[in-house]
Amino acid sequence: MDEKLKMHTEDLVQKNVDVIAELFPDCITEYTDEDNVPHRSIDFDALKRRLSGAAVPDGKERYVFTWPGKSESLRNAFAPISKAVRPCVSDSVDFQSTRNVYIEGDNLDALKLLRETYLGKVDMIYIDPPYNTGSDFVYNDKFSISEEDYSQVSGDYDEYGLRLQVNTGSNGRYHTTWLNMIYPRLVLARDFLSDKGAIFISIDDNEQANLKHICDEVFGETNFVTTFTWAAGRKNDSKLVSVSHEYILCYVKSMDHLRQNAVKWREKKQGLEDIYKKYDQLRKKYGSDNKAVEKELNAWYKSLDPSNPATNHKHYNKVDSRGIFFAADISWPGGGGPKYEVLHPVTGKPIRIPSRGWLYTESRLKELIDDDRVLFGADENSVPCVKSYLREHEFSAPYSVFYKDGRASTKRLRELMGADVFQNPKDEEIIQSLIQFCTDDDSIVMDFFSGSASTAHAVFLQNISDGGRRSFIMVQVPEPLENLKGSSEASKKIYDNAVKLLGNKPHNVSEIGKERIRRAGSSLSSSQSTLDRSRPDLGFRVFKIDSSNMNDVYYDPQSVTKDILQLSADNIKSDRTPEDLLFQVMLELGAELSSKIEILTIGGKKVFDVDDGFITACFDKDVDNSLVEHIAKREPVFAVFRDSSMASDAVAINYSEIFKTFSPSTTTKVL
Amino acid sequence: MDEKLKMHTEDLVQKNVDVIAELFPDCITEYTDEDNVPHRSIDFDALKRRLSGAAVPDGKERYVFTWPGKSESLRNAFAPISKAVRPCVSDSVDFQSTRNVYIEGDNLDALKLLRETYLGKVDMIYIDPPYNTGSDFVYNDKFSISEEDYSQVSGDYDEYGLRLQVNTGSNGRYHTTWLNMIYPRLVLARDFLSDKGAIFISIDDNEQANLKHICDEVFGETNFVTTFTWAAGRKNDSKLVSVSHEYILCYVKSMDHLRQNAVKWREKKQGLEDIYKKYDQLRKKYGSDNKAVEKELNAWYKSLDPSNPATNHKHYNKVDSRGIFFAADISWPGGGGPKYEVLHPVTGKPIRIPSRGWLYTESRLKELIDDDRVLFGADENSVPCVKSYLREHEFSAPYSVFYKDGRASTKRLRELMGADVFQNPKDEEIIQSLIQFCTDDDSIVMDFFSGSASTAHAVFLQNISDGGRRSFIMVQVPEPLENLKGSSEASKKIYDNAVKLLGNKPHNVSEIGKERIRRAGSSLSSSQSTLDRSRPDLGFRVFKIDSSNMNDVYYDPQSVTKDILQLSADNIKSDRTPEDLLFQVMLELGAELSSKIEILTIGGKKVFDVDDGFITACFDKDVDNSLVEHIAKREPVFAVFRDSSMASDAVAINYSEIFKTFSPSTTTKVL
Repeated sequence: MDEKLKMHTEDLVQKNVDVIAELFPDCITEYTDEDNVPHRSIDFDALKRRLSGAAVPDGKERYVFTWPGKSESLRNAFAPISKAVRPCVSDSVDFQSTRNVYIEGDNLDALKLLRETYLGKVDMIYIDPPYNTGSDFVYNDKFSISEEDYSQVSGDYDEYGLRLQVNTGSNGRYHTTWLNMIYPRLVLARDFLSDKGAIFISIDDNEQANLKHICDEVFGETNFVTTFTWAAGRKNDSKLVSVSHEYILCYVKSMDHLRQNAVKWREKKQGLEDIYKKYDQLRKKYGSDNKAVEKELNAWYKSLDPSNPATNHKHYNKVDSRGIFFAADISWPGGGGPKYEVLHPVTGKPIRIPSRGWLYTESRLKELIDDDRVLFGADENSVPCVKSYLREHEFSAPYSVFYKDGRASTKRLRELMGADVFQNPKDEEIIQSLIQFCTDDDSIVMDFFSGSASTAHAVFLQNISDGGRRSFIMVQVPEPLENLKGSSEASKKIYDNAVKLLGNKPHNVSEIGKERIRRAGSSLSSSQSTLDRSRPDLGFRVFKIDSSNMNDVYYDPQSVTKDILQLSADNIKSDRTPEDLLFQVMLELGAELSSKIEILTIGGKKVFDVDDGFITACFDKDVDNSLVEHIAKREPVFAVFRDSSMASDAVAINYSEIFKTFSPSTTTKVL
Repeated sequence: MDEKLKMHTEDLVQKNVDVIAELFPDCITEYTDEDNVPHRSIDFDALKRRLSGAAVPDGKERYVFTWPGKSESLRNAFAPISKAVRPCVSDSVDFQSTRNVYIEGDNLDALKLLRETYLGKVDMIYIDPPYNTGSDFVYNDKFSISEEDYSQVSGDYDEYGLRLQVNTGSNGRYHTTWLNMIYPRLVLARDFLSDKGAIFISIDDNEQANLKHICDEVFGETNFVTTFTWAAGRKNDSKLVSVSHEYILCYVKSMDHLRQNAVKWREKKQGLEDIYKKYDQLRKKYGSDNKAVEKELNAWYKSLDPSNPATNHKHYNKVDSRGIFFAADISWPGGGGPKYEVLHPVTGKPIRIPSRGWLYTESRLKELIDDDRVLFGADENSVPCVKSYLREHEFSAPYSVFYKDGRASTKRLRELMGADVFQNPKDEEIIQSLIQFCTDDDSIVMDFFSGSASTAHAVFLQNISDGGRRSFIMVQVPEPLENLKGSSEASKKIYDNAVKLLGNKPHNVSEIGKERIRRAGSSLSSSQSTLDRSRPDLGFRVFKIDSSNMNDVYYDPQSVTKDILQLSADNIKSDRTPEDLLFQVMLELGAELSSKIEILTIGGKKVFDVDDGFITACFDKDVDNSLVEHIAKREPVFAVFRDSSMASDAVAINYSEIFKTFSPSTTTKVL
């Protein structure tokens, strides 16, 4: 019997019950609710007896931070949803080839939808949630609970509807709303982090202490690395204290990994220090005679014990007035790079063009030559190299304080977008240094409060800087810009600029974010700055969160039989495309949204192949024996069809037999 | 009937009961305890009915941060103690004249002892409590509760004595100990703050979030100003993240006062900006012609509307190549300054010496002359002035980030003390800028985690810089240096240095602190740097907290009658001096420890006069009618005698009559 796809996210409460059931089967009981539905439940009295002594007695003071709705918001995090991510090719760049993902929608939905697929796969999460400054919390209406609900939870409204103070002066409710927003998201976010994963959360004084307590709870205080401080420079305001700094809380999944990194880094740094020391000595000895310095530097490398970490950098064996560099290949990796004439600076004759073409555009290469960053041969017969300086490739351990003027990033974004279109954008260069600090070349970087998409930009920058293949997942709710429009003249101007930029597109934050990524990508692809060995991925796939592709009837066990022969009702919404179905199925079966997707036409039907045979799916109707056989012969891990897609009862009957014959290991699924 | 002095601190719980009794007399009840002693108590059921609707129902989630022992540590803050502060003249500098106070002892005791006297009188509190880094918390044994107690409170020890996790991974107890230490101290500290008072608390990541929550509770979140960040510069360590920043939380007693300051500051700043703008214009116009610039600057001042804030600075009416200055008096205020010969730079003849003497020592004045900071007259017949530059006297609103290398303050302290004798001393220049930010010229500045006494040093510096008369109250427990001695070579070296420095004195932190203040004072008095109008107060009175001066019999109502005739038992400990008694009495009657004290000898008896007749006290025995009459004729606010001090029953009987006759308004007290 085929397993029917769930087409909704996991019920995480039931998963937790399963864990308890495995450990303490005697603590599991069953009770029947008012509607006579039986539930598998936990007998807490039994569980307490099993854990006797370890429970805090009721009513005793304990080390704890709570707020009204905390338990409820945790339940909220674990509740399943039946929504779908629908691809939007027209908003995307390089949809087919890119591994970057942009999701438009509520991030709580996104986290639930992506959780199973990306469990433990994300090396870095950076988020910039609203700071709850009283004006930035545009999520307010969405996440707040009604006064009535609040009153029921905390009981702190009096009969006149006035708000009374809960605990901290005038603001119990104020924090509560924010806390109930952030808490379930962080709980879910933790599951995405890989064993070497790190999360960075921007925040300011308003909620920093609360966030720290929550993160200590969610990520574990022992995994707290530091609170980075971003000092954005004295503001030109007339306040008695000029406050313009904020924080970036950093937690890792495991401190062990960070310690291992620290050891590696120390070794590497050790090597570098020795090299610089040697270089300084040689400069003193030989002055500006680069050749002499080069010669003795190389002799020194050879004299080193192979265990000396400095030997890891012995390919940095040339020097010029700037410092130590290595001569890097200047041709396009794999071939197909641009070919144009370059004149030798001494002979004045055209240089031999590399067979794979140049690594740079003509104008960029000219800039590099003018900047003395190209090393020419003796004459036009040898291909030149590009200089890769040791200092520029040195990993620099971050200092806990970023002292960086906040106006600089605002200015860069203004130049990219043509005008100020976003308030207080995050500095993509700071995020880039965090990426450099904690990711590998192929890490996934996630940001589920994407805003102006500085994180996506930072991923582009770091990939270009070190030739990495990191990919990103951005999530942003399409918050209307109207909601963010403040009362100040400056913020109104920004709103007007943004509306002008977006024109006929919807006026929301997601549109700003996507436009920023498009512009960042095209500006970077034209100004390819350094030493990348491969063309960087500057595209992204856009998805929009929507209701499930399935009609309600799909989820109602009373009206749906599990028999594939039941073709009567079409359970798919009429406005959904096969591509919509494909991505919902992919997430349920654990295929990443960035997976490679091939579209085949077999017997006139559209067939999707995901990740080279991981999933083969056909959502067309009237599938015949021949198509089923064709697909089975491809031996996919999963084969997916529509419940109502078989041409006839006979095909449906044969279907399982065909797979048994040609690909018994394939798991077949229907929806 | 004379009122007998309590000689113990207030019972703050009873004071709170009094407040409730006044508001809701119907909620006060009486109950008789097991020992048949009646207590005035609160009927909480009645109180809840009076406040119906405003109470959080039991068991509901509320916005709250708690830990085991929180309630108990609050009770601890409010419990009375019967201790005394005993003066130590030999450790003091200028004991008679100084208004600065240094108290050696547990700061919880000190806060209780000083609370009534200093209620609402302190404009600034700065503290640097232990950060709970795992090694700095030398208060650990003192403030921690035993495992047994802890287990009773939180119930989180299992039968094997293993610690189980309370809430946040492995550290529930760890934070609890620190929280129970800091919480009662902050609760008491708040009462010291004046209406315009501010408190600054240094902390790092270990307890910052917890401290923020406690302070929001104790001082009110709406009174939170900012978390200053001190970025101490990248450490030369090999960690993956170089963490060397910490925080200074700032709360004020009332935000209104800060807002008023902001308005004043804005106005003042406005005036300055106009002046600088004008000056720049004039410099462009006249180049280096100082006279021309001066002339037009003064004409411009005169042209201004009197409401223009720039007119507040019109005495800054001279210029030189450095900028705008005013010509300040160079003679010793009040007279008695040093007199020595100074030659006129043009005529080469001795200048007329000011009749009050010079403001500076000879060597310091020479430095100022060499630095072109002295304005000479046309010849030797006019007294010169010292240049006071506008830029140097401009108040600068602090930026929320102090970017200041931590090694600099360590180096300055090393130079002062002759060696490194204290780990991680606080930067007195940062504290000075906080003092500049939030105090008036005559504010009291308090630091009850005084450590290396950087705060005392900072008060000296700021008084010298602006001629202020601020005074300080330092409190430091005489923690043995042995407890602070870490395992690192560096910290052992510091310990050895400190022991060497202290020699025969006790090897504890208080001794280091006092020595630092002495050295800071003498170094500053010899290098008098700027424009003070009066000799700064560089002394301090040392007090040591000890058990009460009174024997137990004093506090036992059963054995002491309130009759002054009861002379049989001497209730004062034999090792206590009249000065010991005086200061205990002063605190009980509300006289500050810095009060002016005159010692008179009347009829062979030692009589103390505090604050020019506020208290007149005689603790000698065998007081006769003549002395009582003498004291009564001085008409003090309080007259204090020893219970057993009268020469005969007859004197005691006449005593009240004498006061009725000569000073009916005097309140007489006995102990």
